[in-house]
Amino acid sequence: MRHTITILVENEFGVLTRVAGLFSARGFNIESLNVAPTMDETVSRLTLVTRGSEKVIEQINKQLNKLIPVIKTEDISHERHIEREMLLVKVHASEDSRADVLRMVDIFHANVVDVSEQSYTLELTGDAEKLDDFLKMITVDSIIEMSRTGPLGMRRGDDGFVI
Amino acid sequence: MRHTITILVENEFGVLTRVAGLFSARGFNIESLNVAPTMDETVSRLTLVTRGSEKVIEQINKQLNKLIPVIKTEDISHERHIEREMLLVKVHASEDSRADVLRMVDIFHANVVDVSEQSYTLELTGDAEKLDDFLKMITVDSIIEMSRTGPLGMRRGDDGFVI
Repeated sequence: MRHTITILVENEFGVLTRVAGLFSARGFNIESLNVAPTMDETVSRLTLVTRGSEKVIEQINKQLNKLIPVIKTEDISHERHIEREMLLVKVHASEDSRADVLRMVDIFHANVVDVSEQSYTLELTGDAEKLDDFLKMITVDSIIEMSRTGPLGMRRGDDGFVI
Repeated sequence: MRHTITILVENEFGVLTRVAGLFSARGFNIESLNVAPTMDETVSRLTLVTRGSEKVIEQINKQLNKLIPVIKTEDISHERHIEREMLLVKVHASEDSRADVLRMVDIFHANVVDVSEQSYTLELTGDAEKLDDFLKMITVDSIIEMSRTGPLGMRRGDDGFVI
């Protein structure tokens, strides 16, 4: 099963190595991960997606909580939550194909964030499924390069995941 | 100086631990990082931001290239490139403050992606500076929680950063 885990960590030296090491030591692949500072510059927030049985993920969560720089961790997969991810994709846009590309941009509410002579760079946000669908609709041949962030996750409701 | 480094890696086991370990072993802090699969499911793309002198970053890049699962790496900081990051922020939105929040959403071209009784969850994309400005304009008191992805980076022009 797919798990989305959010973690608040102290901005200590080497904390990412330790968190990632915990997963690799147990043979777990990290499908996607992102980490960036929060409003409190001594604290970063990490969101990672992995796959595994309920039981093992629970064990990993316990181990994560034992790491000194880890302040708090939550597997939000079972909670009412939203996930949003960003995709950046550079596509061929010759005179012939531009109209097609712009039609896709329109349908998916994407944005053109950069234009070169023969290419457009598009930005799209949404859940992972929407991004996958968008990539499926663009013919593979027309993709020059792509990059995605992995999802951010947040519980619904008025409460926050804070220290 | 701030450096944005893009890396293509084989989806091998523990590769994130090794990349992160290389930075922590040299006393370098990773400010932000994201990693997610590409169109080729055996390859992931990693974008990380760090600060350091030109010389040491160059050394790290050389070391990165020596890691077997690393296919390609580039410090795009000196190239013409774009950077885009996504921010998710849950803010208080009582009857009194909703109009103010929506005004900010409008000015920054943000999106309301979730609504609860007393809060809105907003999504914003742009360069790091734009996201910082947005967070400065929202009063700290009104922020319930926030999460950002760290930037994706792409060179401008028609070429792609591919295998």
